[in-house]
Amino acid sequence: METLLRRCQIRSQIVRECIAEFLGLYILIGSGAAAQVVTSRGTHGDYLTIQLGSALGAVFGIFVARGVSGAHLNPVYSLSLCVLGRHPWKKLPLYSLSHLVGAFLGAATVYLQYYDAIQTFSGGELLVAGPNATAGIFCSYPADHLSFWGGLVDQVVATALFLLCCVALEDQRNGPLPDGLHPVLVGALILTMGVSMGSNCGFPLNPARDLGPRLFTFVAGWGEEVFKAGGGWWWVPIVAPFVGGLLGTLTYELLIEAHHQTTPQSPQQEQEAVELEEVICIDCEI
Amino acid sequence: METLLRRCQIRSQIVRECIAEFLGLYILIGSGAAAQVVTSRGTHGDYLTIQLGSALGAVFGIFVARGVSGAHLNPVYSLSLCVLGRHPWKKLPLYSLSHLVGAFLGAATVYLQYYDAIQTFSGGELLVAGPNATAGIFCSYPADHLSFWGGLVDQVVATALFLLCCVALEDQRNGPLPDGLHPVLVGALILTMGVSMGSNCGFPLNPARDLGPRLFTFVAGWGEEVFKAGGGWWWVPIVAPFVGGLLGTLTYELLIEAHHQTTPQSPQQEQEAVELEEVICIDCEI
Amino acid sequence: METLLRRCQIRSQIVRECIAEFLGLYILIGSGAAAQVVTSRGTHGDYLTIQLGSALGAVFGIFVARGVSGAHLNPVYSLSLCVLGRHPWKKLPLYSLSHLVGAFLGAATVYLQYYDAIQTFSGGELLVAGPNATAGIFCSYPADHLSFWGGLVDQVVATALFLLCCVALEDQRNGPLPDGLHPVLVGALILTMGVSMGSNCGFPLNPARDLGPRLFTFVAGWGEEVFKAGGGWWWVPIVAPFVGGLLGTLTYELLIEAHHQTTPQSPQQEQEAVELEEVICIDCEI
Amino acid sequence: METLLRRCQIRSQIVRECIAEFLGLYILIGSGAAAQVVTSRGTHGDYLTIQLGSALGAVFGIFVARGVSGAHLNPVYSLSLCVLGRHPWKKLPLYSLSHLVGAFLGAATVYLQYYDAIQTFSGGELLVAGPNATAGIFCSYPADHLSFWGGLVDQVVATALFLLCCVALEDQRNGPLPDGLHPVLVGALILTMGVSMGSNCGFPLNPARDLGPRLFTFVAGWGEEVFKAGGGWWWVPIVAPFVGGLLGTLTYELLIEAHHQTTPQSPQQEQEAVELEEVICIDCEI
Repeated sequence: METLLRRCQIRSQIVRECIAEFLGLYILIGSGAAAQVVTSRGTHGDYLTIQLGSALGAVFGIFVARGVSGAHLNPVYSLSLCVLGRHPWKKLPLYSLSHLVGAFLGAATVYLQYYDAIQTFSGGELLVAGPNATAGIFCSYPADHLSFWGGLVDQVVATALFLLCCVALEDQRNGPLPDGLHPVLVGALILTMGVSMGSNCGFPLNPARDLGPRLFTFVAGWGEEVFKAGGGWWWVPIVAPFVGGLLGTLTYELLIEAHHQTTPQSPQQEQEAVELEEVICIDCEI
Repeated sequence: METLLRRCQIRSQIVRECIAEFLGLYILIGSGAAAQVVTSRGTHGDYLTIQLGSALGAVFGIFVARGVSGAHLNPVYSLSLCVLGRHPWKKLPLYSLSHLVGAFLGAATVYLQYYDAIQTFSGGELLVAGPNATAGIFCSYPADHLSFWGGLVDQVVATALFLLCCVALEDQRNGPLPDGLHPVLVGALILTMGVSMGSNCGFPLNPARDLGPRLFTFVAGWGEEVFKAGGGWWWVPIVAPFVGGLLGTLTYELLIEAHHQTTPQSPQQEQEAVELEEVICIDCEI
Repeated sequence: METLLRRCQIRSQIVRECIAEFLGLYILIGSGAAAQVVTSRGTHGDYLTIQLGSALGAVFGIFVARGVSGAHLNPVYSLSLCVLGRHPWKKLPLYSLSHLVGAFLGAATVYLQYYDAIQTFSGGELLVAGPNATAGIFCSYPADHLSFWGGLVDQVVATALFLLCCVALEDQRNGPLPDGLHPVLVGALILTMGVSMGSNCGFPLNPARDLGPRLFTFVAGWGEEVFKAGGGWWWVPIVAPFVGGLLGTLTYELLIEAHHQTTPQSPQQEQEAVELEEVICIDCEI
Repeated sequence: METLLRRCQIRSQIVRECIAEFLGLYILIGSGAAAQVVTSRGTHGDYLTIQLGSALGAVFGIFVARGVSGAHLNPVYSLSLCVLGRHPWKKLPLYSLSHLVGAFLGAATVYLQYYDAIQTFSGGELLVAGPNATAGIFCSYPADHLSFWGGLVDQVVATALFLLCCVALEDQRNGPLPDGLHPVLVGALILTMGVSMGSNCGFPLNPARDLGPRLFTFVAGWGEEVFKAGGGWWWVPIVAPFVGGLLGTLTYELLIEAHHQTTPQSPQQEQEAVELEEVICIDCEI
């Protein structure tokens, strides 16, 4: 087996990374929590379980890809790393494409798994709006109360806060994290977004995660309505997150990271040092 | 006490492992969250608490067995480890049998604990279908909307994603995990399945966890209907998970693990190295 | 301040431990999640939030006491440690008394904090049964469907599983835990009990946690009905947990712990060793 | 980019700390879970999601600020550290002001993001009471059943328990915590408060978190009613938390921390030492 696998080994680092990003986003979408709640008309979950599903889906998407590509799983995050000079610009289009393909196939898998349920629920009609609408399972649509500018602001604000926290979690000088906790915290962050910024337009936050499934529903039978709906809403969750992401990243850099002394001296870290000292003392006494 | 216990010590490694696998699955089932919600008609929990119960039950099942047998708790997982050459084939039947017995006795315990509640709820009639059905407390039955092929696909897809993530969590070259976090993450993974793939047929994912309790309900008074229901559904959650499990395992191996360099060089791990360096710096300054 | 505190320093280890156990249980009860849900008639929480409240209350009770007394917070747990020779028998009555006092004062605090709410909800009548009953906020009462033997079995089974898992979490040879994760896991275990074994009689599991608040309600105005209700139910959650606790402890000792080799050799731990090796390799490359 | 950022570097430690405290509280409030549930009339969340939102908001607020200022995010916590001689008194007003400004702008952001939703929900009328009230999204108001003294007691008790646990989590001699777990536990503590002490007056616990948004609603169009409501309730969540905070801090110091031996000797820690020993043994065998 091992030898068999060794034969298939790909030496190109970039190909490996793209495969990892693809698989990570595929798993992220694969958790079709919305499909379950919608088609079961709320008997098999509620708003919270949908948010738990997408947050946990992201956690395991990250665990699958983190060691190979760093598990960006979001073109906005890749962009912000490029801007910060922590990721090569030339990889950005390849990563983004991998995200898009992963999201498209993830949506296809959800449709495959819930084919019977969706057919029964919708009576065979694949609709974007109305009581039997099923397009909302796959990508974001604005709520009735939401104006165009309201949607734009919502996505800029949400993605800004999202990226600000993502960058903060990566900032080692702001306090280290144990291995393995980081993906869980990103999942918790997505849950936070879901329970606090999901009612305007479903917090896409991720252009690939929104466009990929939208393209799938377009070809799978929901038709061009998926692009027309909400007054041509489709491009907002593609453009706004990039704006918000840069805004959030720069905010963190300017307010926090730029001011770190090269050697950590903040009260928190001094205290951590003290803690470490104590821990070590305990060991010494063994 | 210690000396008394030492007398009972079993030297055979395989017997110890089978006992651990048995006890682990016994505890996994022992958490009868479904019994509580069904018999209380939803006053003592909802769909989410059922999923929390089975996820957390698995977490503690793993904690009980992990140090002795590695806590497979699922014949599909044992099989995938055998295929990968990480578990001896000859142990597979013994592990699977231990799982089956553990699941059977776990179901018996749930029935014992909820005997009064089930009798009151069902009016003494142990039914597989209908408003007062109680068989669903113990094992999986397909939803009305689910076709035979739909059920097969659902289980193959769900188990494939499940095993893919399980194998990823075990892959140390994809980023280490702190001791003790691994069982929690497997529980989180089961919760993910529950909130996103549970409405078609209750995401069995585990042949022993499904067949054991089904056998118990068969002998305990629900009768042969437990095998006839859903057009002879009973064998699908036994066969499909093995197919899906292999599919998921091989997908991860071919897309991710096969391509690891022997010495870790991925961005993520380089970064971790840097982090470690920084952490060490902090200590040094003490 | 420091010097002031140093003056109050108590040198007696046992007194310090009793204070810690007292405070831990006080906090455990202090989280009156049931009071909130009952008196708000479900507008401020549901069954799950009650379980989250008691689970998290226990987590922080443990964090408050763990360093001083080991945070037993349950006479059943103290007893099982005594039986295993890991805790001196002479401390058992003192610990149990501290638990009882902590639980009594914790209940008093909940009543103080929810005095207005309870008065408004109950119309000033402190009842044990009926639609406006409030005694269930403080301690356990059997559900209508539950027979005497059913209640006894429920408590023996639940406490057995509870202690079995508690002892497993303490068993270092079954895989180590990172500091600080242990209290969280005990909380998760209590949540598991709540979502899967709470509908028969509210999973007391803890004689002190049940009797202390019951005594408080007795003196606070609910009267002797708190002891008469459920056919003199009150003594079941005091006796049954001790029986179940010993059963669970011995089960784990006989099935798992007795068979550990003195030097760990189980697959899981070998694997951990390997992981450690890899982690170290990464560091070395820095 | 790096060089650009370096140009903006602020050398003053206190300014950096104030910015961090400001940003932390800004993020804490930024998660407008209440806005979502209220304006969606419960279709996009429930009481639990509101609590999850504020708890998780705090977690990420802490992650953003912890390395720079220690992430107090609450004037009460800063005060208790000052009283314990662990924080300079002269920083207290500056920290508190940063908290207030962060909370004010956080509330403004929530209003911006939910402008359409709030307008639609309230029909354009910004009310403090009644079925279409929206002021409760931003700060605390007492429930109808709550008397003045009841509210005062509720806040003193809740904040006392809150600070008692916060100080316990910081007490290294009561058992160390892994880096990165501490912020998560503080979030869990806030969740505990929310599910168990939220129905009387919404557990403000934090004068800045309550007054800042109240000031915002005052200027944003809800008018002076935000100060008149509940019989001039507004000052209770400002004064009571300071009283409760000191009470809880001193309780912990007098009952637990004052009695720690300088060299750790408690059973728990001895046991940890033993565990460490065992862990080390495992490593040795590599």
